[in-house]
Amino acid sequence: VSDRTALTEATSRRTFLRKGAVAAVSLPAVASLAACTETRAASKPDSLAKAPATPAPAAPVLTARQKADAMDAMHEKGLKAFPAKTAGKGNQLLAPRLEQGVKVYELTAEEIQWEVEPGRTVKAWAYNGQVPGPQIRVREGDRVRVKLINKLSQSTAIHFHGLELPNDQDGVPFITQPPVKPGESWIYEFTVPNAGSHMYHSHHNAAIQVGAGLLGAFIVEPKRARPAHRADVDYVMVLNDGAHGYTLNGKGFPATEPIVCNQGQTVRLRFMNEGMMIHPMHLHGMHMTVIAKDGWDQPAPWKCDTLNIAPGERWDVLVKATNPGTWAFHCHILPHAESEHGMFGMVTALVVQKPGVA
Amino acid sequence: VSDRTALTEATSRRTFLRKGAVAAVSLPAVASLAACTETRAASKPDSLAKAPATPAPAAPVLTARQKADAMDAMHEKGLKAFPAKTAGKGNQLLAPRLEQGVKVYELTAEEIQWEVEPGRTVKAWAYNGQVPGPQIRVREGDRVRVKLINKLSQSTAIHFHGLELPNDQDGVPFITQPPVKPGESWIYEFTVPNAGSHMYHSHHNAAIQVGAGLLGAFIVEPKRARPAHRADVDYVMVLNDGAHGYTLNGKGFPATEPIVCNQGQTVRLRFMNEGMMIHPMHLHGMHMTVIAKDGWDQPAPWKCDTLNIAPGERWDVLVKATNPGTWAFHCHILPHAESEHGMFGMVTALVVQKPGVA
Amino acid sequence: VSDRTALTEATSRRTFLRKGAVAAVSLPAVASLAACTETRAASKPDSLAKAPATPAPAAPVLTARQKADAMDAMHEKGLKAFPAKTAGKGNQLLAPRLEQGVKVYELTAEEIQWEVEPGRTVKAWAYNGQVPGPQIRVREGDRVRVKLINKLSQSTAIHFHGLELPNDQDGVPFITQPPVKPGESWIYEFTVPNAGSHMYHSHHNAAIQVGAGLLGAFIVEPKRARPAHRADVDYVMVLNDGAHGYTLNGKGFPATEPIVCNQGQTVRLRFMNEGMMIHPMHLHGMHMTVIAKDGWDQPAPWKCDTLNIAPGERWDVLVKATNPGTWAFHCHILPHAESEHGMFGMVTALVVQKPGVA
Repeated sequence: VSDRTALTEATSRRTFLRKGAVAAVSLPAVASLAACTETRAASKPDSLAKAPATPAPAAPVLTARQKADAMDAMHEKGLKAFPAKTAGKGNQLLAPRLEQGVKVYELTAEEIQWEVEPGRTVKAWAYNGQVPGPQIRVREGDRVRVKLINKLSQSTAIHFHGLELPNDQDGVPFITQPPVKPGESWIYEFTVPNAGSHMYHSHHNAAIQVGAGLLGAFIVEPKRARPAHRADVDYVMVLNDGAHGYTLNGKGFPATEPIVCNQGQTVRLRFMNEGMMIHPMHLHGMHMTVIAKDGWDQPAPWKCDTLNIAPGERWDVLVKATNPGTWAFHCHILPHAESEHGMFGMVTALVVQKPGVA
Repeated sequence: VSDRTALTEATSRRTFLRKGAVAAVSLPAVASLAACTETRAASKPDSLAKAPATPAPAAPVLTARQKADAMDAMHEKGLKAFPAKTAGKGNQLLAPRLEQGVKVYELTAEEIQWEVEPGRTVKAWAYNGQVPGPQIRVREGDRVRVKLINKLSQSTAIHFHGLELPNDQDGVPFITQPPVKPGESWIYEFTVPNAGSHMYHSHHNAAIQVGAGLLGAFIVEPKRARPAHRADVDYVMVLNDGAHGYTLNGKGFPATEPIVCNQGQTVRLRFMNEGMMIHPMHLHGMHMTVIAKDGWDQPAPWKCDTLNIAPGERWDVLVKATNPGTWAFHCHILPHAESEHGMFGMVTALVVQKPGVA
Repeated sequence: VSDRTALTEATSRRTFLRKGAVAAVSLPAVASLAACTETRAASKPDSLAKAPATPAPAAPVLTARQKADAMDAMHEKGLKAFPAKTAGKGNQLLAPRLEQGVKVYELTAEEIQWEVEPGRTVKAWAYNGQVPGPQIRVREGDRVRVKLINKLSQSTAIHFHGLELPNDQDGVPFITQPPVKPGESWIYEFTVPNAGSHMYHSHHNAAIQVGAGLLGAFIVEPKRARPAHRADVDYVMVLNDGAHGYTLNGKGFPATEPIVCNQGQTVRLRFMNEGMMIHPMHLHGMHMTVIAKDGWDQPAPWKCDTLNIAPGERWDVLVKATNPGTWAFHCHILPHAESEHGMFGMVTALVVQKPGVA
């Protein structure tokens, strides 16, 4: 079905890329819409009388095709790197310690270095060295104890966003508790009241502290599983746009994590927005069936391919993975997902594997 | 359930706060993430030979704990001030004058001074000296007359946003009427056609005029009350983000108004966005059941704890006040609600009182 | 019902406008809120000794009423110009060529000049010389071939946003196909899988390319029409906020297109957001019944007058045109719709004609 017309340009991409130094100089210029007009790489005509007798060598003129090839090479490089390895992985399931029937979790807040994309490492404030913090997964009715240990230079506190807790466990300094000072700790303890995809995050100096990484997923399984919600893969996707840039689970493309399943399986996605902007997530190739909002079942599931997720919201969807292939999955505010240098930020893929294919 | 580790810092918060002058100098520096590194308050080592023989006294070095205490003190101050008194109150119910069965309202648009938060007074364009303008509350089928008196320096007009009026009452200058000039007046008269949470606001130079305060709630009770929508408290919350900053009913925290009810009661909230940005309002401790959009019943109520409200939208929700306590209630775009100096802007509280407790 | 108080100003608008030159100088100053204080038009007291003996004539002082009149005149001018003629019309239905039962479409991407509003012409990247590109309208189960011819200076590709195609037709360079180089072409061919209001657009350097105009509507009629969705008028409205400013179907007010119907008819609107921001579209005078999201029927239709449309989303609504008149229809982020110079950008009108009235 593909049909490419013959090249009208003599210089092929390979020939061009062999001109290493020139390409390197030219890339920044290429990566700009303004560069559609002819661009000379770092050459300035010398009009001064004192100019040397031997003229400077003429800088090469890039053809439109060469410039397109250079841009495409940058795009290809990013996609070929996906999923790129980086130090650190957030949102890892945290196993509780059991103490007389209570599930005990320890969350240590401290400053770390966090590699968002290959080679881009930023200062982060993290729980247990992860951005997002470790995933907590419990069941309705569980007794849970969370010990917060504050190794930050600021006071902090944890709010369990979405859980309908007794007021003194709500984590809002000067309303429900004192702030937890640097070097101190605090214990939250409660019986888990309501199922759903919830979050935990700082509620003290929160615009800064949550933006810096003090956030995580708090998933509560219902006492009785809903058969209609059965899924083969259960994936939490935390969206963020704070101090670390546009991220999915703490990483920017190409360091984001693909979601992998087999054809015919059902994937449950739990979107959570911990940022300051909306992010309409668009899935290619298949639709999503929206089953819950903020942990509460929708009265009737509904379908879409682009789901707008606002700060503080959680949306649960099911994807029936009928369509095999690697499918782009990204925020459809395009400047959150692609620049002239290629895809970045809030981009990942849903990989639907055919049976018998690894 | 609370367990604070021993202080590792010798200087207590009280001792620190007694050092008034030093604290005052240091606060701006403290209130910055950059200040996590050691900061010297206004001290510069004097390296010049001409320095006086008697050395300047060493400036005090703030410890991390002192800086945390200083930041916390700012946060505490804001919360302790809530609800702070300010001059003026918007959104007050306006009683009509009855003229031969017609409910007559007068709205005078003029420039006023408006205190948004304690000590922050801004220029506003207001109806009847209030931001939001006075609340109009009528019933489906009522005959209503609204006289607009323009004491502004610009022309203006009123659009009844959400009401399905005859075209000549729609309030759009040069489409449905001439602009109402400075010093002139205009009369709107109609039979109220459709129930719901609606708004009235300027539709002339509206980006400026609505942003400056020319807006109000227009509530239409249905002819037949819906038993499922019965509420003990009916509260209108107008969101804005224009010239006066981030406000709820014209005030920024801590001058916002808490919503108060008794445990077991049902609260109806009518969100209205008169701003230019989305505001996902997050309620702590309980969920909201969404019953209407733009005045129209949703086909099936649905639940959430974070409701995204876009400009021009109105959403009605019910909250069953089961959980006693003072619950934070704020926009979850965190920079609309909290800075390093503490909470501000779009923050209020839902106060659920236990029976027998004032 | 209208009642204007007597003019307190002697100078009428007509008299004022006759002072052509003065008005022209003064308008920019008038068009600013700061100009509420007295403004002198381009007059500077000459304090130099070398000043001519004959003093400069005193500049006229505009009264508040004159300034209001001047602003109103700008607003009136825009509204009277609506719908203004401009060169070019986007979103025009593209008739396919039939080849052995296959509907064949050709889309040529190239740079054009595009008149957004009268006198404002911008550089655009367009399919077939239109912004939005030509509307493609097919039926579920149709066999479709789309030939993309790239006459741009960059590589490109087409993603059929919302269609659940085989992976190799998904249009994402380096994932599902190579980029289509300048001067080359590419053929997509598929059996149309799912009904609904979909889109096609570039998926290569897309933040730039879609923003520059490489986008269009791809409507798929269902195999069996739903009687409840029957409409007399079927109108596609593509929202955009990229390089060309705030536009509806590629044009800014007053060059936007009114939607015209007869009283009693049903209008189906298909909103599509190809921009980077939300746009809550507000219809005056009547409500909208939301029937589909991203091409999928909503489980139960619901009503509103302001519908928030996020980037990448499509929403289908029905409007029962019960209320005769010309109704403003605009984005309710007011700075997307009105400035002090009058309405602009994302504004159009729904015109409901009375029977027997042209």
